[in-house]
Amino acid sequence: KMLKRVLCTVLFMGVLPSLAEASQGHISVVLLGATGDLAKKYLWQGLFQLYMDQVSSGHSFTFHGAALTALEPGQRLMFDVLKKLACPPDESPDRCAVLKDQFLKLSQYHQLKTAENYTVLNREIETLLRQEGLREAGRIFYFSVPPFAYTEIARHINSSCRPPPGAWLRVVLEKPFGHDLQSAQQLAAELTSFFREEEMYRVDHYLGKQAVAHIVPFRDQNRQFLDPIWNRHHVERVEIVLKETVDAKGRTSFYEQYGVIRDVLQNHLTEALMFLTMELPANVSRAEEVLQCKLQAFQSLRGLEKNSAVLGQYQAYASQVQEELQKAQDYISTTPTFAGVLIHSDNLRWEGVPFLLTSGKALDERVGYVRVLFKNRAYCTQSETLRDAGHSQCKAKQIIFYIGHGALHTPAVLVSRNLFRPVMPEGSWRAAVGQSDLHIFGQPLSDYYVYSPVKERDAYSVLISHIYHARKDFFITTENLLASWGFWTPLLDSISHQPLRLYPGGVENQHLLDFEMVSGEVAFTLAEPVELLNPNRLMPSDYRTIQSKFRQSPLVSAWSEDLISLLASDIEKTASRTVAHSGQFHLALSGGSSPVVLFQRLARHHYAFPWKHTHIWLVDERCVPLTDTESNFFSLHNHLLQSVRVPYFNIHPMPVHLNQRLCVEEDRGAELYAKEIMALVANASFDLVLLGVGTDGHTASLFPQSENGLEGAQSVVLTESPVKPHQRMSLSLPLINKARQVFVLVLGKGKHDITTLLSRVGHEPRKWPISGVSPSSGQLVWYVDYEALLG
Amino acid sequence: KMLKRVLCTVLFMGVLPSLAEASQGHISVVLLGATGDLAKKYLWQGLFQLYMDQVSSGHSFTFHGAALTALEPGQRLMFDVLKKLACPPDESPDRCAVLKDQFLKLSQYHQLKTAENYTVLNREIETLLRQEGLREAGRIFYFSVPPFAYTEIARHINSSCRPPPGAWLRVVLEKPFGHDLQSAQQLAAELTSFFREEEMYRVDHYLGKQAVAHIVPFRDQNRQFLDPIWNRHHVERVEIVLKETVDAKGRTSFYEQYGVIRDVLQNHLTEALMFLTMELPANVSRAEEVLQCKLQAFQSLRGLEKNSAVLGQYQAYASQVQEELQKAQDYISTTPTFAGVLIHSDNLRWEGVPFLLTSGKALDERVGYVRVLFKNRAYCTQSETLRDAGHSQCKAKQIIFYIGHGALHTPAVLVSRNLFRPVMPEGSWRAAVGQSDLHIFGQPLSDYYVYSPVKERDAYSVLISHIYHARKDFFITTENLLASWGFWTPLLDSISHQPLRLYPGGVENQHLLDFEMVSGEVAFTLAEPVELLNPNRLMPSDYRTIQSKFRQSPLVSAWSEDLISLLASDIEKTASRTVAHSGQFHLALSGGSSPVVLFQRLARHHYAFPWKHTHIWLVDERCVPLTDTESNFFSLHNHLLQSVRVPYFNIHPMPVHLNQRLCVEEDRGAELYAKEIMALVANASFDLVLLGVGTDGHTASLFPQSENGLEGAQSVVLTESPVKPHQRMSLSLPLINKARQVFVLVLGKGKHDITTLLSRVGHEPRKWPISGVSPSSGQLVWYVDYEALLG
Repeated sequence: KMLKRVLCTVLFMGVLPSLAEASQGHISVVLLGATGDLAKKYLWQGLFQLYMDQVSSGHSFTFHGAALTALEPGQRLMFDVLKKLACPPDESPDRCAVLKDQFLKLSQYHQLKTAENYTVLNREIETLLRQEGLREAGRIFYFSVPPFAYTEIARHINSSCRPPPGAWLRVVLEKPFGHDLQSAQQLAAELTSFFREEEMYRVDHYLGKQAVAHIVPFRDQNRQFLDPIWNRHHVERVEIVLKETVDAKGRTSFYEQYGVIRDVLQNHLTEALMFLTMELPANVSRAEEVLQCKLQAFQSLRGLEKNSAVLGQYQAYASQVQEELQKAQDYISTTPTFAGVLIHSDNLRWEGVPFLLTSGKALDERVGYVRVLFKNRAYCTQSETLRDAGHSQCKAKQIIFYIGHGALHTPAVLVSRNLFRPVMPEGSWRAAVGQSDLHIFGQPLSDYYVYSPVKERDAYSVLISHIYHARKDFFITTENLLASWGFWTPLLDSISHQPLRLYPGGVENQHLLDFEMVSGEVAFTLAEPVELLNPNRLMPSDYRTIQSKFRQSPLVSAWSEDLISLLASDIEKTASRTVAHSGQFHLALSGGSSPVVLFQRLARHHYAFPWKHTHIWLVDERCVPLTDTESNFFSLHNHLLQSVRVPYFNIHPMPVHLNQRLCVEEDRGAELYAKEIMALVANASFDLVLLGVGTDGHTASLFPQSENGLEGAQSVVLTESPVKPHQRMSLSLPLINKARQVFVLVLGKGKHDITTLLSRVGHEPRKWPISGVSPSSGQLVWYVDYEALLG
Repeated sequence: KMLKRVLCTVLFMGVLPSLAEASQGHISVVLLGATGDLAKKYLWQGLFQLYMDQVSSGHSFTFHGAALTALEPGQRLMFDVLKKLACPPDESPDRCAVLKDQFLKLSQYHQLKTAENYTVLNREIETLLRQEGLREAGRIFYFSVPPFAYTEIARHINSSCRPPPGAWLRVVLEKPFGHDLQSAQQLAAELTSFFREEEMYRVDHYLGKQAVAHIVPFRDQNRQFLDPIWNRHHVERVEIVLKETVDAKGRTSFYEQYGVIRDVLQNHLTEALMFLTMELPANVSRAEEVLQCKLQAFQSLRGLEKNSAVLGQYQAYASQVQEELQKAQDYISTTPTFAGVLIHSDNLRWEGVPFLLTSGKALDERVGYVRVLFKNRAYCTQSETLRDAGHSQCKAKQIIFYIGHGALHTPAVLVSRNLFRPVMPEGSWRAAVGQSDLHIFGQPLSDYYVYSPVKERDAYSVLISHIYHARKDFFITTENLLASWGFWTPLLDSISHQPLRLYPGGVENQHLLDFEMVSGEVAFTLAEPVELLNPNRLMPSDYRTIQSKFRQSPLVSAWSEDLISLLASDIEKTASRTVAHSGQFHLALSGGSSPVVLFQRLARHHYAFPWKHTHIWLVDERCVPLTDTESNFFSLHNHLLQSVRVPYFNIHPMPVHLNQRLCVEEDRGAELYAKEIMALVANASFDLVLLGVGTDGHTASLFPQSENGLEGAQSVVLTESPVKPHQRMSLSLPLINKARQVFVLVLGKGKHDITTLLSRVGHEPRKWPISGVSPSSGQLVWYVDYEALLG
């Protein structure tokens, strides 16, 4: 066979390391899709680099290109590529020429189409090894093929091409790895049926970019400087940016399916984000621990909402899609080509720090960077003009991982000189000589310590080396992949019909794509220009909020999301007014599912809420321990209290759990709560009570025909629910009716019938307890969404 | 009499408004100290301006200069000053010449020394008014005299010079108004015995500076823009600065008594701060309401601590003091000539926003400004170099009230163009034409809307006009004055022996006086230079941490600050390890003052602490409500819990307050707590118990000879303290000794005796309860600072 002949020739010529020297065993590299674009452009060059780097490692190598093309034309195509392999500038031309010659001889083309083809490949590898007396170290299969081909190839490799016990198998996979969480799970499940987790190397080539790959080592090597400042107290904001000048022309068949978030943010930028935010393990060279920490970092991310992102589409995209995909003239693409996303990490280290991820096509420049901007805490007494530029603490403090292109034209790590002089690994990074007139992020280059790689290396060659060294932390594990899709999919779902801002492309975009943070969300800074891609759907804001009357009381109605926003704002207004007037605000909240969205809204968007002066009371509680997931208080704590700063003393859960037992009459929990209310709330008149309505007309935990709580002197009562858990504690109707304000929230189609009924009936609390809500000297307001109101 | 002659002459000449036209009545202005520096430089000019402005107001005027000097030389001195009065540039020379002539004729000198002198003055005024048939409108007495003369003059005015009923009296007082809270109170009390509050006009000439005086009107007229952003969510920081190039030479006899804080910060800068932070009344032209709001703003200020300020002294000051005050060579002045102070306002609007007040002599430039810097919340997608400069939202957003001097050489109001176009009162402020090449606070002048006064007016002439118009909100009321001294006096006391940083003066100061905020405090950014006014004190870092044994257990010792850092780190390590192992961490904390610093350190520096999995228990508690400031839990909440995210369910205050009463045996609080421990803590064995030691050897709330808790089966006990509040709840010694780890923290010289004693005695819990701490299977570690250990 050819391979054998090649190897023999080489060995006879004595140029290769002798077989005896191949003490580490033999490695077979199989490149599937050997004549494709990626292979041509990067992968063969990366494999050649691996060969040059590892020729003396004690391993011997053979390289197998494979594709669907028949042997003859395939061989020709592949060797055309191989002949053009370049010698890196840091390699002596003589050595490189010799090694390139060897590399060509060690490389062979295979047609891999049928099951038989795989069996033959496997047999050839085995035969060679046996004949040459080589021990097998392992096999690398690099999938540079479209994802639809993955499953079949994987099945063949698993059934026919596994190396013998003692040798490893590494399969290298290229994105896309799914389209959303579900498809990614499916793809992962299929692959898992053929390969073990440790056998799979999912490539995100950003992890091979030298500046991105250096984030974790940098954090590790500069712990002494970063430990005190790598947190919310010192970091002002983080920007993770990949801007492109090219557009999607010629690639719309792919792009129209994916868009900028799936193409860039879900993978590249998210990975960089994780390297920045993860806790560092003690030893960053342990791939396992790094991966574990990264996974934990995913768990801290706050869920994204519709308004976490601003989206745009360059103007020419529509016609490109129509032309390339033969779409009708009235086809409207909702695929974003620009996105700016605001991300928060909700752990103690990063709480409140904005992470801005931005990427787009047809922008003004090509550049990628990760920029950490620190808060400026200094006051410089000397006037600016008279200051010594050297170490002024008043200049911006930043750390930038410059991925490439842009003004610098090279990967780099920049650290403001007034921050610290970083430790950089000698040999691989060196201080760069700056162009004195260059400004980077508002400051002259001379304000930074600037380091660039000693050898600038292509991402793929870096990653191929990591595959060889089994550095799994430079690849995307299944867990990592699913965590990322789990994070992004809700946003992708919620924005699928969002309007996009159209932009002309290039420098003309001007300020059109600038955006700003407002109350935990983002919005474009410029008002909407005339043109807007608005898929023919009525937006909630197209409807006016309905303000009218319901049961003789004010009614506020809107789509549920807007209704919740309104309600939250109204609660805040009431709170601020009440605190301004009386110094404190007594708020009684209901349990159930409807208020959860309200709680989240209050927690995330109402920073001016006077929590410090607010007392939180429960309207009703289930007789379960407070830490039970069924507990109303538990839900309130999870969705609201743990995110805001209500003093411990101002939180008043219902005492359903006394003496290690639940709602036992003799423990007098209801009485206890009533006393607490009497002691703290003036006239036992809450400033605001928030109620819901059940489909049976119950409110609080006051159910139809309830023996307690509908009338009488008791303020707090034990009641029975028709559904589990049956035992409840509840404020009584008379107490509720003493409140200064009562808001009733009714959401969803399921409540339409009871809403309709309530609009007709009078005061009949025994039948429908909610109908008994009628504050004696306070105000009642109904917040009913369109679905409940209109069905 | 001369005055009469003058007036008659004038009237005969027919130049003055006729008496019939003086329909508003006559005003007599008496300037005490008429030949002094301030009078020469500003006051006469201000009175002349008043005359020019109000000559047609319907009031007639006479001006009475007064001093101790005898009539003849006094007259000469005074008229020398009056002859030099300048005509303002905006006044026609002809009109001014005529009016100046009239002004001179209406002005007369008086010797005011004896009680008789005052009676004579009064009689002269009365006679004139009667003879001329003038109704008296009021009298202004301007005290331009040293404060020691105030009381006597005030007495004379009160007894001899009060106008008849129906006419008003206004006395104008110049600072200093005391030296600290006590002296200010005393001075205020004296004045109050002679004048009513509404009669007193205390001058702070900063309130007459046009830019300062415009802060409140600006806030009022721009409410629509400022309302949403004038708060902690949008303001990054505020700088209130008065820098001088001159030093104190020739004035050290005054300056050595006062220093920069009393001279500038307590009055001028604090007043500007109040104008910025106060809530605006609905109608800012109501002086009463403005004053009330300002007073409320004082109440929100967080108390200052030693480290709220950085202090400096220019190098030549020492020799100037020695020379001018004839001090000995070894005399060391501790008077600061430079101060930077960090102030926080603890209301909802400003919580967390740093207000930096800075002033100093012998600095690099003369300038005063109030600068409000807003947070930058925008991301600009267009690269800097390609951005349209116009309205980029990424440029700094600021509002500056430029008091004067500096690069602009004029009072001004500057508003960043990307913020809003301000409303300015037409007629009094106009858009200024900028020098295009000028940079102000890092940005070209063209980035701002710039306004300057149409007429630039001296502060005194502004204030004299306000006295005439009875605008009391431009003066310092007694309440305001005492509130300000109440705020500054604790800092002045605590820094009276602080080391000062020496600075060379002028441009050579370089970065020596730059300072930065660190955890709510300020510190110079540059490490201490060689020269330092440091009263021979050893620095903590001069000693290494001692690790050895104490009472057969490990001992960690260091200076207290380092010891607290170590202890906090050790607690975090224990917590992380325990959570990793068992999923939760049960921590029992002691009350008292020593742990407060520890709590703060844990809250501010240990972001990775696993609070979410930590249970917080109390070692002991005082029998007071949890919201009582004496409560251990209250202190723990204030200094730790409100800053970290411990789930509500994991917080376990001691139940000292049950059934609306405190620590009553029958309420079984101790038993309840013991049960809670049994239910949640495996084997009732805490993971870590933190203890302290009293000077009597008590620990937890276990006092010598205690009947409960030193032995026996009870886990939680009620005890009696020899000091108030007597009743306590405490973990028992047997329970403490079940802990897996016990740390004992001992701080301060006051604990040296008991520490020494404990190093000698054995296990005698009845005498010294702490000696009974000896975990049966856990570890005990002593954290004792050098002061406690070495005395």
